[in-house]
Amino acid sequence: MIRSRLPIVALSILVLALASACEPGDTRSAMRPATNGSMNGSLTALMEARGLSEADVVAALKTYTPTGGRDEYVQFASGGHSGQVFAIGLPSMRMLKVIAVFTPEPWQGFGYGDETVDLLDSGNRNGKPMRWADTHHPALSETNGDYDGKFLFINDKANARVAVVDLRDFATKQIVTSKLIESDHGATFVTPNTEYVIESAQYPAPLGGTYAPIEDYDEKYRGAVIFWKFDREKGRIVPEESWAIETPPYMQDLADAGKRASDGWVFVNSFNTERSWGGSEEGNPPMESGASQNDMDYLHLIPWRKAEAVVAAGKTETIAGMRVISMETAVAEGLLFFVPEPKSPHGVDVAPDGEDIVVSGKLDTHATVYSFTKLKGLIDQQKFDGKDPYGVPILPFEESIRGQVEIGLGPLHTQYDADGNAYTSVFIESTVAKWSLADLQVIEKIPVHYNVGHIAAAEGDTVSPDGKYLVAMNKWAIDRFNDVGPLIPQNFQLIDIAGDGMNLLYDMPIPGGEPHYAQIIKADKLAPWDVYTPVGLNVLTDEVDPNAVTGGEERIERRPDGVHVFMTAIRSHFKPDVIRVKQGERVHIHVTNVEQAKDATHGLAIGSQNINVSLEPGKHANISFVADEPGVFPLYCTEFCSALHLEMAGYMLVEP
Amino acid sequence: MIRSRLPIVALSILVLALASACEPGDTRSAMRPATNGSMNGSLTALMEARGLSEADVVAALKTYTPTGGRDEYVQFASGGHSGQVFAIGLPSMRMLKVIAVFTPEPWQGFGYGDETVDLLDSGNRNGKPMRWADTHHPALSETNGDYDGKFLFINDKANARVAVVDLRDFATKQIVTSKLIESDHGATFVTPNTEYVIESAQYPAPLGGTYAPIEDYDEKYRGAVIFWKFDREKGRIVPEESWAIETPPYMQDLADAGKRASDGWVFVNSFNTERSWGGSEEGNPPMESGASQNDMDYLHLIPWRKAEAVVAAGKTETIAGMRVISMETAVAEGLLFFVPEPKSPHGVDVAPDGEDIVVSGKLDTHATVYSFTKLKGLIDQQKFDGKDPYGVPILPFEESIRGQVEIGLGPLHTQYDADGNAYTSVFIESTVAKWSLADLQVIEKIPVHYNVGHIAAAEGDTVSPDGKYLVAMNKWAIDRFNDVGPLIPQNFQLIDIAGDGMNLLYDMPIPGGEPHYAQIIKADKLAPWDVYTPVGLNVLTDEVDPNAVTGGEERIERRPDGVHVFMTAIRSHFKPDVIRVKQGERVHIHVTNVEQAKDATHGLAIGSQNINVSLEPGKHANISFVADEPGVFPLYCTEFCSALHLEMAGYMLVEP
Repeated sequence: MIRSRLPIVALSILVLALASACEPGDTRSAMRPATNGSMNGSLTALMEARGLSEADVVAALKTYTPTGGRDEYVQFASGGHSGQVFAIGLPSMRMLKVIAVFTPEPWQGFGYGDETVDLLDSGNRNGKPMRWADTHHPALSETNGDYDGKFLFINDKANARVAVVDLRDFATKQIVTSKLIESDHGATFVTPNTEYVIESAQYPAPLGGTYAPIEDYDEKYRGAVIFWKFDREKGRIVPEESWAIETPPYMQDLADAGKRASDGWVFVNSFNTERSWGGSEEGNPPMESGASQNDMDYLHLIPWRKAEAVVAAGKTETIAGMRVISMETAVAEGLLFFVPEPKSPHGVDVAPDGEDIVVSGKLDTHATVYSFTKLKGLIDQQKFDGKDPYGVPILPFEESIRGQVEIGLGPLHTQYDADGNAYTSVFIESTVAKWSLADLQVIEKIPVHYNVGHIAAAEGDTVSPDGKYLVAMNKWAIDRFNDVGPLIPQNFQLIDIAGDGMNLLYDMPIPGGEPHYAQIIKADKLAPWDVYTPVGLNVLTDEVDPNAVTGGEERIERRPDGVHVFMTAIRSHFKPDVIRVKQGERVHIHVTNVEQAKDATHGLAIGSQNINVSLEPGKHANISFVADEPGVFPLYCTEFCSALHLEMAGYMLVEP
Repeated sequence: MIRSRLPIVALSILVLALASACEPGDTRSAMRPATNGSMNGSLTALMEARGLSEADVVAALKTYTPTGGRDEYVQFASGGHSGQVFAIGLPSMRMLKVIAVFTPEPWQGFGYGDETVDLLDSGNRNGKPMRWADTHHPALSETNGDYDGKFLFINDKANARVAVVDLRDFATKQIVTSKLIESDHGATFVTPNTEYVIESAQYPAPLGGTYAPIEDYDEKYRGAVIFWKFDREKGRIVPEESWAIETPPYMQDLADAGKRASDGWVFVNSFNTERSWGGSEEGNPPMESGASQNDMDYLHLIPWRKAEAVVAAGKTETIAGMRVISMETAVAEGLLFFVPEPKSPHGVDVAPDGEDIVVSGKLDTHATVYSFTKLKGLIDQQKFDGKDPYGVPILPFEESIRGQVEIGLGPLHTQYDADGNAYTSVFIESTVAKWSLADLQVIEKIPVHYNVGHIAAAEGDTVSPDGKYLVAMNKWAIDRFNDVGPLIPQNFQLIDIAGDGMNLLYDMPIPGGEPHYAQIIKADKLAPWDVYTPVGLNVLTDEVDPNAVTGGEERIERRPDGVHVFMTAIRSHFKPDVIRVKQGERVHIHVTNVEQAKDATHGLAIGSQNINVSLEPGKHANISFVADEPGVFPLYCTEFCSALHLEMAGYMLVEP
């Protein structure tokens, strides 16, 4: 960002430069901003014609990224109920990729070939195929509390799942789920060295997927916080090394891991400490009012390193295959504490130094700033204000906080910059409030459009935030864009926070799904692969596939388990290109893209079989299905690969 | 677009205006482009810092659309093998919506509730669920050859399907498929009053889905052109009023309907008149070389009004439920003519006046301009150069054309502007060539990045093109954007064609699927609904659903076929909110969003059931499934609807 002030002379020089090539009568070139150094267009006329204010001109120049230019940051945003993750470049606000995570996506072949069907099936619940998700909170892997650009984690609120995305190829590698819980929301958040990926339940249920009448809610329904162990070497979560802590049947909400001063702790919000479960048919109040009675809910404090030791000591019970520290053990071992937090909070956000922990109460007007030193001191002194009905000790509120900031109506989520400022989204007001961590005073507010949920600042929840940019993720966008029917996009608004103030730069419609949360990483921390090497890589095992095919070894083999086709793809043909099978035979196609040129991607689609795989350079894929219908089925390349792409085709013949 | 030239004085005034508020020492506001009328930023410094040329500044101002601003055009682009359609605003190049068409999309609830599962199932092939597509060519409905903004059609090349999207709600209403053919590419194209939606086969196969050895390719494999009858009142294709014409086993490719001078005709390209079918294992050449032997392929000419009369006269046979005019009948009745066209053509594009028909031969360097008057004259005179092996008369090439334009390497697709110019994409060269229809001379070329496939100009294939904008849909984008792994986005480049020259304005990465073709409509021709009215609308039947629920009538009924839940959704609760069933019971949820406020959308997700429906204001949806697993399953609203959105939840209890 530019901080120099405007020298009048400089602008005058610019104008002269722009105007210099503009001779009267030169109608041909009048509107041609050619690349020869002259800019003949009339800026004033352009501004007038397009209704641009001076601020708009600055915003345009701060966001426009010319052909071939790179974005400085990449924002990974949950795709909400699209079930995917959106990768967006900043400041241009261009969507670079929709990463398929939980929902089938045929461009990526995701869910239309063996490996990815198996991957999706690994996320099934009760044996039932799960083919969508409500993704909420992406978490970039961290090293010493800073994004390291290696992995991305994302949860599925609807079906209590967590996925691992490898940022070398922006592809989903693993989906894990535990029947311990039925939904999650406080997920995913990582510990400062990505030891664990945290997943907290949202809607309480009997642990382990069993049934209990809802009238037994208080006794038999529970929440839990799962600590999924991450193996960075393997790039996979290790379920058998993961564990959980049982929590009361409040609705656990967002979480954050402690860092620096608070390293080793995890903080989890909750709402509905009233334990309302609805029941309108029985004359109960709906949950929206039942869950909004108490003035305070409970922030959960968990010392995860200590809990890890308790797990290692075997003080767990196993539920649905997961080692679980019971509430009783958690209380006895000092692993779970509560501190009151204002009514129905959403975000709990640890400041860069780890000392301040900011909670926003959606139905309160404050951001409440807890002091980790105070919290820890109270715990060490065992100074409690009593216990909740489940025996969890409650810290005294007033002695836990450093103060409260009067934010406005509906504070929701907080991010940080490099200069000691915090930014809190204010849902009901539709603003973002900038405030000082030092003196807990609001500095400025900027209106956003409308009903902002989460916000994301550049590296804004790490130990070293960058400032510069903030994105407001607005839920409603009623009058911002061209109408596209009753279902309208969300609105991501890019805000310049580089200077002293906040300035709106850009409105980006989100064309599918409702992103809830995002993280923004410096682009130069990412080092994605151009191609898969060595050729024949199975991108889910990270090894050369046993059935990888090299040029010259293409063949068709008939085996007891069916017809095996060993195929290569190269511009612009498949070899072999004709597959003959008998009706009812099982077909196994093993196909390798033997190219190593960047972007020389092929696809292999087979008509009427619901099959399509994406074959990036070097990638191997396996396909298997039963040829249960006789007929003639074209197969072809689904990525435009050359002038003869349409001819990259063949046939599968199924003889009756 | 602005055509006035630059008065130096105007720019100077602008500079003074911009600079006027910039007082020395005012560091606070130096970089704040505030909205109070002063622009304090330094344009030169900004340009320098962001590496912007003067042409970039003009491009930025021509594309940047400030908050709340509207785009002038909407581009409907195929989503390629995403199976969807992308709606993009021009000139901002922001994606406004991904319209779910053939692939499940949970944000829209598409494929996760009864109506849309049934809709997707209506596109099954051989009883096999089809859950993806390779969408290629969207076609806007037309009135008198001009876009009318009412409907959009889109094909699925992989599985020979056609879908109807209603532009009142940007939602897919119908999927049709015929086993007559196995794939399509020359689809969809509409006749000038949307009487028919045209779908041409691509890869020949025995008509009707039967089996024949590939060695019988010449005798038993065929193409076909299907004319799907569209009922504008109902907004649906009427399969029983649709019909087809059998064609030789060439690969029929893109098509276009005649207009004005050529109204009543359809033109269909072809390649692989060599009838190569690959067979590398048998020592045959791969199709890419086998199909590239002939210097000429055949442009197909079909008088569809005359064919319609032949169908009405009953001169058809029925194959796979479709009335088909055999090749023999087509020849006998004068319904099918060929004219040679240069090697492996792709686009056939009828000029606005209907007289010129431009064909681009991918392996030829020309755009060939046929004269409809000449073609018609030759046909009327029965002046043929012989027949193809299937008896189809061939018109003499030289007497059919008005001329050829030397375009360059790999001409592919042509669009038109309002000033008598044509624009042809040049794939191998990676350029777009602008040329004059009057004198058939190239005026200018602009480089694009890279390997451009189709292009779309504003209303550029109608009887009254707008000019102004052209989008180059580039297949490869190797160095244009931040790296996102081996699978990289396509690149849509917006080109300003308003002036005499062509100027690149914007690069837009396409984050999912490979768009092949697009149409660009003036935004003010679209009039989408804000909400569904009346409340309770079933958006697939266009009527109030028989199970629609009004406030106060919520209930749960046990019937022989299962448990029926009549539910309403309103900010922020479902009523009823607790559903109790026994394991194995069938559950039917009938849910109505009773709101009528714009954007007051709710979603209803049920944990671990693979269920999510989108409930835009007024919409009714039905959900049914068997509660086959016991347990406690949260249900909740998946659209952030209010501050108490998280509390818009309930439970489904499945008692063992």
